[in-house]
Amino acid sequence: MKQIITLFFLTAFSVSSAQSIKSPDGNLVLTFKLTSDGIPAYKLGYKNYEVVKESRLGLKLKDMYANTGIDKLSPSAENVPSLDKGFVTSKVDSSIVDEIWHPVWGEVSSIRNNYRELAVTLLQPTQNNRQMIIRFRLFNDGLGFRYEFPMQDNLNYFTVADELTQFSLTEDHIAFWIPGDYDTNEYYYTKSTLSKVDATYATKVNEIFSKTIIGKNFVQSPLMMKTSEKLYINIFEAALVDYPAMHLEIDQSNFILTSHLVPDAVGNKAYMQTPCKTPWRTVIVSDKAADILASKTILNLNEPSKIDDTSWIKPMKYVGIWWEMHVGTASWNYANVNNVCLKSTDWKSLKPNGIHGATTERTKRYIDFAAKHGFDGVLVEGWNVGWEDWFGKWKEEVFDFVTPYPDFDVEEISNYAASKNVKMIMHHETSSSVTNYERRMDEAYDFMKKYGYPAVKTGYVARIIPRGEFHDGQWMVQHYVRVAERLAKNKLMLNAHEAVRPTGLHRTYPNWLACESARGNEFNAWSVGNPPEHETILPFTRLMGGPMDYTPGIFQIKMNYYNPDKKEQVHTTLAKQLALYVTLYSPLQMAADIPENYEKHLDAFQFIKDVAVDWDDTKYIEAEPGDFITVARKTKGKNEWFIGAITDENGRTAEIPLNFLDNNKNYTATIYADAKDAHWEKNPMSYEIINKSVTSKDVLKIILAPGGGCAIRIW
Amino acid sequence: MKQIITLFFLTAFSVSSAQSIKSPDGNLVLTFKLTSDGIPAYKLGYKNYEVVKESRLGLKLKDMYANTGIDKLSPSAENVPSLDKGFVTSKVDSSIVDEIWHPVWGEVSSIRNNYRELAVTLLQPTQNNRQMIIRFRLFNDGLGFRYEFPMQDNLNYFTVADELTQFSLTEDHIAFWIPGDYDTNEYYYTKSTLSKVDATYATKVNEIFSKTIIGKNFVQSPLMMKTSEKLYINIFEAALVDYPAMHLEIDQSNFILTSHLVPDAVGNKAYMQTPCKTPWRTVIVSDKAADILASKTILNLNEPSKIDDTSWIKPMKYVGIWWEMHVGTASWNYANVNNVCLKSTDWKSLKPNGIHGATTERTKRYIDFAAKHGFDGVLVEGWNVGWEDWFGKWKEEVFDFVTPYPDFDVEEISNYAASKNVKMIMHHETSSSVTNYERRMDEAYDFMKKYGYPAVKTGYVARIIPRGEFHDGQWMVQHYVRVAERLAKNKLMLNAHEAVRPTGLHRTYPNWLACESARGNEFNAWSVGNPPEHETILPFTRLMGGPMDYTPGIFQIKMNYYNPDKKEQVHTTLAKQLALYVTLYSPLQMAADIPENYEKHLDAFQFIKDVAVDWDDTKYIEAEPGDFITVARKTKGKNEWFIGAITDENGRTAEIPLNFLDNNKNYTATIYADAKDAHWEKNPMSYEIINKSVTSKDVLKIILAPGGGCAIRIW
Repeated sequence: MKQIITLFFLTAFSVSSAQSIKSPDGNLVLTFKLTSDGIPAYKLGYKNYEVVKESRLGLKLKDMYANTGIDKLSPSAENVPSLDKGFVTSKVDSSIVDEIWHPVWGEVSSIRNNYRELAVTLLQPTQNNRQMIIRFRLFNDGLGFRYEFPMQDNLNYFTVADELTQFSLTEDHIAFWIPGDYDTNEYYYTKSTLSKVDATYATKVNEIFSKTIIGKNFVQSPLMMKTSEKLYINIFEAALVDYPAMHLEIDQSNFILTSHLVPDAVGNKAYMQTPCKTPWRTVIVSDKAADILASKTILNLNEPSKIDDTSWIKPMKYVGIWWEMHVGTASWNYANVNNVCLKSTDWKSLKPNGIHGATTERTKRYIDFAAKHGFDGVLVEGWNVGWEDWFGKWKEEVFDFVTPYPDFDVEEISNYAASKNVKMIMHHETSSSVTNYERRMDEAYDFMKKYGYPAVKTGYVARIIPRGEFHDGQWMVQHYVRVAERLAKNKLMLNAHEAVRPTGLHRTYPNWLACESARGNEFNAWSVGNPPEHETILPFTRLMGGPMDYTPGIFQIKMNYYNPDKKEQVHTTLAKQLALYVTLYSPLQMAADIPENYEKHLDAFQFIKDVAVDWDDTKYIEAEPGDFITVARKTKGKNEWFIGAITDENGRTAEIPLNFLDNNKNYTATIYADAKDAHWEKNPMSYEIINKSVTSKDVLKIILAPGGGCAIRIW
Repeated sequence: MKQIITLFFLTAFSVSSAQSIKSPDGNLVLTFKLTSDGIPAYKLGYKNYEVVKESRLGLKLKDMYANTGIDKLSPSAENVPSLDKGFVTSKVDSSIVDEIWHPVWGEVSSIRNNYRELAVTLLQPTQNNRQMIIRFRLFNDGLGFRYEFPMQDNLNYFTVADELTQFSLTEDHIAFWIPGDYDTNEYYYTKSTLSKVDATYATKVNEIFSKTIIGKNFVQSPLMMKTSEKLYINIFEAALVDYPAMHLEIDQSNFILTSHLVPDAVGNKAYMQTPCKTPWRTVIVSDKAADILASKTILNLNEPSKIDDTSWIKPMKYVGIWWEMHVGTASWNYANVNNVCLKSTDWKSLKPNGIHGATTERTKRYIDFAAKHGFDGVLVEGWNVGWEDWFGKWKEEVFDFVTPYPDFDVEEISNYAASKNVKMIMHHETSSSVTNYERRMDEAYDFMKKYGYPAVKTGYVARIIPRGEFHDGQWMVQHYVRVAERLAKNKLMLNAHEAVRPTGLHRTYPNWLACESARGNEFNAWSVGNPPEHETILPFTRLMGGPMDYTPGIFQIKMNYYNPDKKEQVHTTLAKQLALYVTLYSPLQMAADIPENYEKHLDAFQFIKDVAVDWDDTKYIEAEPGDFITVARKTKGKNEWFIGAITDENGRTAEIPLNFLDNNKNYTATIYADAKDAHWEKNPMSYEIINKSVTSKDVLKIILAPGGGCAIRIW
């Protein structure tokens, strides 16, 4: 039940008068003020710590044609007065909200939204009293704030040149960061102090094709930090719509982070029309790392679901024709030619290369496998014409999303899947030719409905068309939302790869099950891969904004199995791959390996078959970014729990109290653990499975190998 | 019947060996050679004149990521070997074509395609024998040539940095030019020598909003020239597809024109995939100006119609709710607010401004007027929501093309028009938000079909979205063709305003009836307007590539009729406005004035009612660019002719021999002429109508007032 207690403060304040609110439990304090120049500023304290020192706020504006190179007549950017200083406070509103809401699917089935809000209405008298509202919401675990611009005579259309938001930190904190980059978030993390951040190494990261590195001292958000006082601070954003993504510029002497928005093709950042608002900037803080992972603040800041009837939205487990292409035993392309054309190529006349992955026959085998083992869906990549020369050509007419290859009988497969009660998952690799995708979307979604594909995995590999736009810019942010909306209109679900990192919009669009939008398991197949600590960092960074389709569950850890020359491998033990189904939350989970590898380890595979994808409750038992995570989750609607415990390159013993179980009840725990001799590099596929009786009074002590993990089903 | 005589020359040539062909009548000579550096070059002679001195050919290539600011790792542009030098001749093919073909509609019903062709296959030995073909076609009135790139191992995808095509002229010719501009062709013409071209004045042309002026010595093609030896030379292009438009850079000391292609958002010119070809570059030349106008070379160079069943394609005359908005007595917008939003504005709640043009009631009056006077169609602008803030905001979600204003009952109007046997013409002003238009196109065309609109007028006012792209760039060129193709698929016709100037593609897409793509009559309503010579230049420039929807037929010449403060006027007499229906060829012609002005001059209006829009034959009787044009056309399928004679600011007597009429037949000529006291500025609306008997032996002598004209129907 929602309780709102609204307290109005209608007072004229002097420019130096500050406003403070506390979080409901009193631990956090948010203070807002205007400086003597009328610059809005805020600071944040937690218990007796300063989290964010006095930091400025505001937006810098420009004439949208200035400095774009287009119109040499337009006035210079400096002539457009910014929303940065000279403010007075017109009004201050304060309120408290305390309510419960229920997500369609999630880590938990019930979420408490409890915050104190301070909304400051500012005017710029020298600009005809142009109005800006800064709204702060203070939760027990963090702060969210955003800028709002009501419809008003003196502010209509405006263009953002920069956002001036700062996060002034107290010290040279340890940070888990990836290079600021307008186009990709597929880096592995570096742990270093802020002063030691140097993103220029990214120019040598060759496993990522499409990079637009901002500069030495620029990093992405979400940014996870740990202070010398063992405070955990996470800076990110929520509800990224109609605006570019926020990266962060680090002042490496003073430890001030400044927001850096992604530009568009002509150097502007955002085009705004009142009434409008920016995304929420979030600072989540706790002295317990597990609290960061458990935070629901980003979801709470998002708009409620826009979809009324959600009965067609269903979490899924799936298999797919996919990994074989990454390890090189099959291909996306049908033929080995380097020049094809949607309008003119006669696909039937091409000579098949003999290793095309997406064939009718192989797909039916996957459908059989899915049906036999209780998987909801089968994804098939490489089913549609165009893969022969799709990559790296900046080709606009690259895919049509409706023409199958000659060896993929979409109708037969559709009927076969239906007969086995298995859903087909569509694949729309756009190759970042987004103008092409948008003009073909209606036809592509009609095709999906015709052949019974309830979900689509989209991809945005390589450089964006419209050329000059970036994956993280406002235009693309609007595109990803357009796709979610149009799919929702068609009652279809979405899994977006290589998109901008999510910011909680799956609350508003619950058909948007997952994104990739970070470095996933696939990098292990064909590059230096992901270090053992990678999955202990992702929940503190990428997953703060939403589920990740990490595609775990690779059993055949080393790639030399496929080709003796290949040196690549997954950098975890097999048991850790199982644990990831619990530690990397997603309502959409893939059993990513090829069926024959599962058939060789059906005992271990049983965990993947059993693990749920939708939860009543989640307990983050212990966590340390970059080191380890242990989490327990209760299956929605069942008295069943799953536990996942993972570690980095250091082995450890996970101590897992089971006090979340019902008292006075006996359970069975099926424990999938690293064998004693397991090691992510030397002996990754060595595991053991133990069954034991447990109760709520038990504390499990599980030894995790270096790069290892443990997956437990309690039932 | 097509006759092809093919002569093969399979000889290895030394690099200095030249190849020559002559036009079928022997007057033109085209010579091709390779210089000692292996640079391809050509020259063109006409009778004893040099038309084009030895001029280089070739393309400069680049890595598409170089210098785009995106990828700092990519090699510099200079590292990509260009298609510019180091060629050897591998093969020379020669042939003759002589055939007749029939356009779906046109100035004539039968066109002869007669040329000699020279196709030179060039190889670059230092680049693995990379292959380029330059194909020359020499007609009796001019030359066309293009570059072709066959599918080959050593050339697959490539990016054009510049085209090196030159036209080296003999002297400082007189030119009729408009400033080179990536975004607009709506300038009036300047007549000057090449050395005196200075396009920088364009920065002060305030009646055009969206300009991207290239530089002082850049002009647009088509470029019309006259030499001191009274030779007429027209340089242009044909079949502009999958490539940017060609502007021209003038070397003002040596009188060399170099092709200048329009860039895209990141500074690249064209993205190519073999097999591919450039548009044809055309040089049309004659010692008779009328021959330039009569030339069919550009049409002959275009691909035949891609539309099999053309029965639904029909030339039209139309009226429309349109001019009243230009003269200010009505508005496109429904309400006077400056901030609306497709997703959220409640249109019914807005306060109507009382002068909205596109109302049900007004539309029905236009339908009545059209039915009464035999017009095929009614255009209505401002029927759909979004006009309140559509202009100058670079707004992406500007129009949805399917939501009418509250006072426009699309269903009632649809039924009413059908009951009166009048067609409704749709209006899709895109506001240059082309990504928005493309993602809404399917829905918009379904809407047209549902409500019985067989044709659409599109508009591209203001700056393009994708931002950074230009109206004349490759991406937009591809867009215009996509629109024509998708409309053809839906059996709908197209009239494109503010698009790139046409280049004969209406042969390939005969549903593409017309473009504006130059400065039309509307400029007279609200700006300095079009000087009296304007319409005597347009056929030598803009109309070389295709019909123009100039929207003639304004009877109320001076705008102070609407508002005593208005100083604007149409810069012609009323009689000249009638003549334009004959001199400015289009299968789509608007009676552009408001009905009440026609009702005041029904005698003159009769000409517009009678004039045909599709022809069996056309005779250009006399013409001088910038001075006068007299043309006679025979109505398709009838023994009826129409004559139009116009002049510039100088009055003159047009001498019109009627020897094109059938011998031994008496005709009636209804002559709509300037009255003796007529003058475009002092007394523009003074006209007289005379009927007289005529035969093929007669020579009419008609006095044209300054800025005047004469329209004649012979029947």
